[in-house]
Amino acid sequence: MLAAFGDEALIAAALAFESALARALAAEGQIPQAAAAAIEGACATPFADTESLAREAAHAGTFAIPLVRRIRVRVTETHPEFADAVHRGATSQDVADTALMLMSREAGKLVDAGLRRLRRALVSLTRKYAATPMLGRTLLQGAMPITFGLKTAGWMLGVEESRARFARERDDALRLQLGGAAGTLAGLGGRGTAISKRMAAALGLAPAITPWHSRRDGVAGLGCALALVTCAVGKIARDVSLLAQGEVGEAREPKVEGRGGSSAMAHKHNPTGCQIALSAAIRAPGLAGTLLVALPQEHERGVGGWQAEGPVIAELFQLTHGAIGAMAAVIEGLEVFETAMARNLAAARVGSDTGESEALARRALAAIAAAEAA
Amino acid sequence: MLAAFGDEALIAAALAFESALARALAAEGQIPQAAAAAIEGACATPFADTESLAREAAHAGTFAIPLVRRIRVRVTETHPEFADAVHRGATSQDVADTALMLMSREAGKLVDAGLRRLRRALVSLTRKYAATPMLGRTLLQGAMPITFGLKTAGWMLGVEESRARFARERDDALRLQLGGAAGTLAGLGGRGTAISKRMAAALGLAPAITPWHSRRDGVAGLGCALALVTCAVGKIARDVSLLAQGEVGEAREPKVEGRGGSSAMAHKHNPTGCQIALSAAIRAPGLAGTLLVALPQEHERGVGGWQAEGPVIAELFQLTHGAIGAMAAVIEGLEVFETAMARNLAAARVGSDTGESEALARRALAAIAAAEAA
Amino acid sequence: MLAAFGDEALIAAALAFESALARALAAEGQIPQAAAAAIEGACATPFADTESLAREAAHAGTFAIPLVRRIRVRVTETHPEFADAVHRGATSQDVADTALMLMSREAGKLVDAGLRRLRRALVSLTRKYAATPMLGRTLLQGAMPITFGLKTAGWMLGVEESRARFARERDDALRLQLGGAAGTLAGLGGRGTAISKRMAAALGLAPAITPWHSRRDGVAGLGCALALVTCAVGKIARDVSLLAQGEVGEAREPKVEGRGGSSAMAHKHNPTGCQIALSAAIRAPGLAGTLLVALPQEHERGVGGWQAEGPVIAELFQLTHGAIGAMAAVIEGLEVFETAMARNLAAARVGSDTGESEALARRALAAIAAAEAA
Amino acid sequence: MLAAFGDEALIAAALAFESALARALAAEGQIPQAAAAAIEGACATPFADTESLAREAAHAGTFAIPLVRRIRVRVTETHPEFADAVHRGATSQDVADTALMLMSREAGKLVDAGLRRLRRALVSLTRKYAATPMLGRTLLQGAMPITFGLKTAGWMLGVEESRARFARERDDALRLQLGGAAGTLAGLGGRGTAISKRMAAALGLAPAITPWHSRRDGVAGLGCALALVTCAVGKIARDVSLLAQGEVGEAREPKVEGRGGSSAMAHKHNPTGCQIALSAAIRAPGLAGTLLVALPQEHERGVGGWQAEGPVIAELFQLTHGAIGAMAAVIEGLEVFETAMARNLAAARVGSDTGESEALARRALAAIAAAEAA
Repeated sequence: MLAAFGDEALIAAALAFESALARALAAEGQIPQAAAAAIEGACATPFADTESLAREAAHAGTFAIPLVRRIRVRVTETHPEFADAVHRGATSQDVADTALMLMSREAGKLVDAGLRRLRRALVSLTRKYAATPMLGRTLLQGAMPITFGLKTAGWMLGVEESRARFARERDDALRLQLGGAAGTLAGLGGRGTAISKRMAAALGLAPAITPWHSRRDGVAGLGCALALVTCAVGKIARDVSLLAQGEVGEAREPKVEGRGGSSAMAHKHNPTGCQIALSAAIRAPGLAGTLLVALPQEHERGVGGWQAEGPVIAELFQLTHGAIGAMAAVIEGLEVFETAMARNLAAARVGSDTGESEALARRALAAIAAAEAA
Repeated sequence: MLAAFGDEALIAAALAFESALARALAAEGQIPQAAAAAIEGACATPFADTESLAREAAHAGTFAIPLVRRIRVRVTETHPEFADAVHRGATSQDVADTALMLMSREAGKLVDAGLRRLRRALVSLTRKYAATPMLGRTLLQGAMPITFGLKTAGWMLGVEESRARFARERDDALRLQLGGAAGTLAGLGGRGTAISKRMAAALGLAPAITPWHSRRDGVAGLGCALALVTCAVGKIARDVSLLAQGEVGEAREPKVEGRGGSSAMAHKHNPTGCQIALSAAIRAPGLAGTLLVALPQEHERGVGGWQAEGPVIAELFQLTHGAIGAMAAVIEGLEVFETAMARNLAAARVGSDTGESEALARRALAAIAAAEAA
Repeated sequence: MLAAFGDEALIAAALAFESALARALAAEGQIPQAAAAAIEGACATPFADTESLAREAAHAGTFAIPLVRRIRVRVTETHPEFADAVHRGATSQDVADTALMLMSREAGKLVDAGLRRLRRALVSLTRKYAATPMLGRTLLQGAMPITFGLKTAGWMLGVEESRARFARERDDALRLQLGGAAGTLAGLGGRGTAISKRMAAALGLAPAITPWHSRRDGVAGLGCALALVTCAVGKIARDVSLLAQGEVGEAREPKVEGRGGSSAMAHKHNPTGCQIALSAAIRAPGLAGTLLVALPQEHERGVGGWQAEGPVIAELFQLTHGAIGAMAAVIEGLEVFETAMARNLAAARVGSDTGESEALARRALAAIAAAEAA
Repeated sequence: MLAAFGDEALIAAALAFESALARALAAEGQIPQAAAAAIEGACATPFADTESLAREAAHAGTFAIPLVRRIRVRVTETHPEFADAVHRGATSQDVADTALMLMSREAGKLVDAGLRRLRRALVSLTRKYAATPMLGRTLLQGAMPITFGLKTAGWMLGVEESRARFARERDDALRLQLGGAAGTLAGLGGRGTAISKRMAAALGLAPAITPWHSRRDGVAGLGCALALVTCAVGKIARDVSLLAQGEVGEAREPKVEGRGGSSAMAHKHNPTGCQIALSAAIRAPGLAGTLLVALPQEHERGVGGWQAEGPVIAELFQLTHGAIGAMAAVIEGLEVFETAMARNLAAARVGSDTGESEALARRALAAIAAAEAA
């Protein structure tokens, strides 16, 4: 996931944009086919000098300027007459936003795959323990009997609901950006819409109704959905870390060789997976809030708001992915102590009838099966 | 909107819950029909002593306890034998969550109506000015010509996208809560699911797959959607307040008698509507973030997280509604100064071709018309 | 605390501002002494029609306009010639900010008193249990022996550090606001600074170096300090609620008649005080963040940012005060179960030496005693 | 600043901790002087394999474990008998927190130096333009005359107030962490306090009254102070970007070769410095809020809350430093257009008397001079 938003991924995505733009320009008669071929060739190999490119980008305030310059240098080597066909009709934000979308798409695949893995693990756990009685706890106090499967069914539904929301927001947000200097599609010979459609198809993104340079609710919606995923995973971590307390002892995350130890106490078995997920759940809300704060951007391109988004989206994807992976491993290997569950339940003296809990757990399993089949 | 989350609305919603519960219990043979009738009667008239009820609720830590006590007192007056049929199988959170959902439904109608009003005003504005040239501005600097209709089309699409998201999240979130003490549907004679379905239908809410006492992504998703609406509206306010600067002078919110004045300067024409919307857009992100922070709640009912949600959701609805109303009035009466637009555009010396902008504005209008028709 | 930011407190503070302004204007020869006396008289009795005043304020976008109008009406009744001496040289924000400061001062006294009460209770607890062994827990896992007094010493130092920070920030923030229309002290006959000093002295606020209409770090600093207090109190609530778990059973908040019950389970003893504090600790960070977001305000008075502050500061004071009061009561009446502490410690088999813990607890007590003496 | 929190800085700080611990242990008779010398030697050279160390740290959940292991390997090469004297009495969090403090101290020096540079530039600007008339603007509307020097005086005071607050919070927060496994100073032969004092002196940090493993208000206070600095700098950026609008044209950030250009518009002179500062001001509040959210940490060491802090503090320092540097360059080279100021002021027809403004600007300069002298 670190690679998904790394410098190399960014350069690859930006080259894909410029290449697709050239092909679409040629197909719509705006530049010669030979120019498109030359640009495509220049974009076929990534630039190796990522460090100097990053330095120039930081100085220029946008990475599009040094990147386009490099492409032009390559094109000029063989076809100087096509140098000014590079980046024709596009603006820095077009490249930057489209690259962010392409990187988010790949990152989104990792998130989705991770959520499906976690869902699978939760389905197994829920099936196995649907009828296992334990103490239900409200406000951290013993309340009434439940089954462990009902508890895990709640985790499972939380993960599934947030997965579905993420999928929706991702599908809404992943759009091509192409607008040119002021978001008008000017400078494309009146073929802007057709060019957009071709590019969107080539890059595997949805076309936008109009350029969205300063209409950023898709990005913020995606960020909120990621935070919701992280916090739904954080809920699982909260519960597992509470169940793993020595005095409760009802569950424990799997011991991984070399992890969860203490530099001071050899006997410790720390909930390292839960720690990762809870830490992410503490950090994600502020990042989602930041994307909301950034929304009311000035006129046709904001000053500050737009520039704040990229690193925040990348960080949200990384935290979310880390939390999912950590808890998938925890759930897949979760140690469950039914004897302790029975003992704690008995000690609470709140009865033991759990027929309804089991039925609810099975109902949740059926709902997930239906969602999986759909 | 203040009334939508006021004490009277809360009591009415809670009485609707208890009444629907009684009817469903009777229909499923858990209490006599006469008990349901008695409880329904007791719930037919709101309690007038809202202040003492609020005081007792604050003391008890939940308003369900004093409310249920009052219903029991009423029932006991005529049918003491049915007193313990009141609230049968339910827990405080069932009443509180369902009441929050019922209040949110009514509040959501106001938000939706406001957004449709604002969308209508933006459609008119976009139609009228689709071809009116003005200076497009990026990073607060003059960039290239656009049309005013393209700018307002961006506002319009932002409002429509956030309206659609809000509608989705609302439909997901508005669910009946019924779980009983530990969210197991125990204590309902094995008829919990049937009772839930009856109640959900009677109250006009969706049933939940399982109780969601500590699975709160629906609530947080709703809050994020509200914040996204507010910030999409805040984007309009940002632009209008910038256009209204004396040196720009391209647009101005309508003068409302007695509003926007200054206690020190008679000549001022302050952008009061924009101020309301921008203030809301500053406050909404922190509130949405709070709902995310609250998500990883402990076990079957959280301590702190759950209790934080109600006032935050209410505040989000109020801010959102206020922002929408303020900007709907601003857009409906917006004064547009085409001469100033032309003058500023000419001064920037960036050309004047806006054919593509007009086409994009009309494309956005077509998309909105399609969305309205759907 | 609700009253501290209520409509009546606001009107009283605003009247105190206008009265002090008139007296200072007269003392500096800007209006006749008789005018000051007339205005003082008009400000001596609060306005009873708070509801219509609130309505007019909401419409005007500032409460200063209807308030000043009412004062002028009163002055005009007896001295029409002095009507225009009312509010001379001031602007709406001068009244609003100074009123916010006066209300914050009173609210700050409540917060400070509450923190001293909580500190006292923590000193007692720490003294009593300085040597009581219990299990120290890291990452929710049993680690090594500590004493309960060392744990409570940590709570105590956290409260004291945040109290000291709050006192500093309050002393910085509580300043008179007087600047006039654009924050220049124009319109005061060249006596603006002298008038400011007189007013500040009369109202018990610090004078500002220059008007701070759009320099808001004092307000945001105060808000952050309040959030830090709330979260330091929330730390205590976190620990108490964990210690009160049935399986741990080492402490419990006192049972208050009619509080902490459950509408579904008579046996419950819910940690209602902890719930209040934890809920506040979840809500305060977003509010403090909002004040930070609001900071970069436009030019001489912001549009949106300034207006966002008042309700957020009021809410922060209320949450903080509520959290302190709830936990002061919890700590004063905390039930401590030394037998359970001993049992859990023994079960963890991590030794029992706690001499250093006791010494640290006593060291913390000495530091607090020194702070109290200072 | 990136280096201040980089892997190499972290390793250097951790080695400094272990070295200082060994020396203090020997001075207090807990380990032989020869052991201290051996450990000091082992810590004198940084580990070159930062990548594998980072990988092992990520796996272990703490970098202390692989780091201590490496030190032990080195010690063992020459003095196997002293291997277990390494890290004696300390826990992972002791190293991690102390390293964070050491890195924050260096980062804090950069922030402080940057703020002094920015203050100097603002003093010059204020002196130069103390008497230059311009239009004061409230709610983005022309209000009354001010001087440009009064506006810059407000920026200057905002920077100075936030600098002073940062210095206070830094002095409070920069403390040694030494507590051992459960924060009790056990395992140090009863000499824990003396060892702490020696280490604190050696490392140039304040000693703590008691270990602060789960008492984190110092860290959060530092983070809030950084966010306040960033947003005070963001206020300057907000104003400069508004003054630089083409229609206003009163000021402009200096043109830097190769910066602020546009990939689509050669004529653009973008406010790149303001963009950096405004982007930072949008991101900092959510990060400060995150540190507040993390505060109520569980028992003697939190699960999730503690681990969230490090990267957030680092990010806050980086954003703050970036914003300060960007705006220092902007202010040092700011182009000011007095003719445009005069023209806009005249056009607003609000008079031209600015005597009070100049006096206020000079008053602010005097206050800054006094602060500098102190």
